Amino acid sequence: MDNFTFYSPTYFVFGKDQENHVGQYVRRFGGSKVLIHYGGGSVVKSGLLDRVKKSLELEGLSYIELGGVKPNPKSGLVYEGIELCRNNQVDFILAVGGGSTIDSSKAIAAGVVYDGDFWDFYQGKPITEALPVGTVLTIAAAGSEGSPDSVITKEEGMFKRGATGEAIRPAFSILNPQLTETLSSYQTACGITDIMAHVFERYFTNTVEVEVTDRLCEAILLTVKKEAPLVIQDPGNYEARANIMWAGMVAHNNICGVGREQDWASHTIEHELSATYDCAHGAGLAVVFPAWMEYVMKHDVSRFAQLAVRVWECQMDFVDPENTAREGLTRYRDFLKSIGMPSKFKDIGAKEEDIESMAQTACYGDGRDGTIGSFVPLVKEDVISIYRMML
Amino acid sequence: MDNFTFYSPTYFVFGKDQENHVGQYVRRFGGSKVLIHYGGGSVVKSGLLDRVKKSLELEGLSYIELGGVKPNPKSGLVYEGIELCRNNQVDFILAVGGGSTIDSSKAIAAGVVYDGDFWDFYQGKPITEALPVGTVLTIAAAGSEGSPDSVITKEEGMFKRGATGEAIRPAFSILNPQLTETLSSYQTACGITDIMAHVFERYFTNTVEVEVTDRLCEAILLTVKKEAPLVIQDPGNYEARANIMWAGMVAHNNICGVGREQDWASHTIEHELSATYDCAHGAGLAVVFPAWMEYVMKHDVSRFAQLAVRVWECQMDFVDPENTAREGLTRYRDFLKSIGMPSKFKDIGAKEEDIESMAQTACYGDGRDGTIGSFVPLVKEDVISIYRMML
Repeated sequence: MDNFTFYSPTYFVFGKDQENHVGQYVRRFGGSKVLIHYGGGSVVKSGLLDRVKKSLELEGLSYIELGGVKPNPKSGLVYEGIELCRNNQVDFILAVGGGSTIDSSKAIAAGVVYDGDFWDFYQGKPITEALPVGTVLTIAAAGSEGSPDSVITKEEGMFKRGATGEAIRPAFSILNPQLTETLSSYQTACGITDIMAHVFERYFTNTVEVEVTDRLCEAILLTVKKEAPLVIQDPGNYEARANIMWAGMVAHNNICGVGREQDWASHTIEHELSATYDCAHGAGLAVVFPAWMEYVMKHDVSRFAQLAVRVWECQMDFVDPENTAREGLTRYRDFLKSIGMPSKFKDIGAKEEDIESMAQTACYGDGRDGTIGSFVPLVKEDVISIYRMML
Repeated sequence: MDNFTFYSPTYFVFGKDQENHVGQYVRRFGGSKVLIHYGGGSVVKSGLLDRVKKSLELEGLSYIELGGVKPNPKSGLVYEGIELCRNNQVDFILAVGGGSTIDSSKAIAAGVVYDGDFWDFYQGKPITEALPVGTVLTIAAAGSEGSPDSVITKEEGMFKRGATGEAIRPAFSILNPQLTETLSSYQTACGITDIMAHVFERYFTNTVEVEVTDRLCEAILLTVKKEAPLVIQDPGNYEARANIMWAGMVAHNNICGVGREQDWASHTIEHELSATYDCAHGAGLAVVFPAWMEYVMKHDVSRFAQLAVRVWECQMDFVDPENTAREGLTRYRDFLKSIGMPSKFKDIGAKEEDIESMAQTACYGDGRDGTIGSFVPLVKEDVISIYRMML
């Protein structure tokens, strides 16, 4: 096990109706003039935005609003938000939405107190200062509600990049599973795929003897595997929604990833897809991850066999463990199919002719050094091969 | 799943040699005049105390010392510590040791800033204010390094009681598995038993559909089950020590217990044993927990069967699940025996003639209302029956 630090100071408030107390938490964590940041339609139509405003008003907090966050959030709205906050002396950013809204909020929070271009943070500058961020989560997926990470796409060049820093970890996050009951089964399945992917990025490691985090990873995967069909079949299943929602946080606050090398090549490969075709991140991951697994499997057949036995409940083939490893991959593919996820380029509108340029950007774009991932370090030719497996 | 809040803001620093940076963390979390609180022999003899002092000196921090914490820490030393801190304007308590030292440090931290008797907190008054506490952990067991809890025994009446409050959650905790390598196998096994017990107290619940926390509980149990024999066989096995040490934190910072009713009757029953006979808490739990399990098993055979299959790797008896449940309990008993833990009253010096008074104190002592636990609420007669099963 590698040396590590673990720090997850977000105050999580979980359960029915908890968004009605959001004002108290904003006040507790230092907000007085709030930017409410959100996407669009559903937050407004469902009445959630009104309930949030009412709670802020009850606490005597003032607020301004900025809607319009889209999936794969863009830098343009971030610049707009930064200016809005500066002009209105905003001291707290409240994200009401999913991972895209939270990530956009984090970017604004860091940008407001920074003299330079906020994009610097997405080119590797550590974020050391930001306005406090709170969240009211409406989709179980990205784990941004409990993470120090943010992913933004820069329109100029369509670079999709991540930034990180303890300063943008939410001060509080309100997770009410009821708010996810109105999501389409497609959105729900994209979220489920994303949660599992966050675990896989940590699970596939070259660090040895990390049983405790292996088992925690498997705990989250087993939970999601069990609950996913229940929620796809019955979107109003609160208990299944609740288990998935909390699993989504645990999958990404890094309790499953401490003390071990992590990979993250698949996220990089996917980011090119969602940046290029604006597909849902989860849908892109459903296409990328099985291909990546197939490509790297021989690097550590035992690890894939362990996953197959412990999570996908395969029988171990003691004579040829690769059979077990492959059976596990088949079951993962079947699982993704069963929840309605795509598996091929054509399903997400991706095109063969873009492979070369996407691989180029994934490996070299915006200052990268040509190699991605760590379980198996991949160069451009590898990435091309992996993309081709998705055709 | 029940509504819940989860807040674990301790900064964890894990790995080899990390105690040499303790001064930096004390400074970062607001300390300038430090009380170093510890037990005795081993911390001094091993040179750990000197390394800690050196690190504080390097940061220009001043300190005073109070050693002498014993297992099952007593109120007398807490009073002494409180007075010492007040007389020396101490603003930070640094615990160097195991759960007893940390619990004693927490009691001092709360007592220093409180006008009344610190024991009020151990009779149910919530702790809302305390000096910051940091820890350098030397035994994987109590989980106090990441919890808001403290257990102290009051000499007058030998009441062993717990207090809780976010204010006494450590600001930082340094976990270096190397520091646990010199523990005797008996101490190590006591710690392992305690870690598992913290999970069991959360696992046995009447709250339904809490798969995510069930799985997290099982992840910790599976880890400890695997690593325990390795470390008993080879005390210098760093990797096994590391897995157990982190498992000990995860077992008790409540990530395994959110959203569900918890039990804690077994801890209450054990506290009478360690208060009366001054046995190690873990040894007491090894005697109590199997008896408690046997006594309450029929309340929820499915839950015991689930534990048996998922953790103790029993084959499910689909015709009579109670067989599976019982087989799981047998394997737990075998496990405890294999790591050298006691199983009977006589092994820990406990006496049949004290049963009546211990049951009385467990259920009614110091203001209690006569019922303990929640999975199966127990009254005095139940507690007597459970004690008698340990004869």
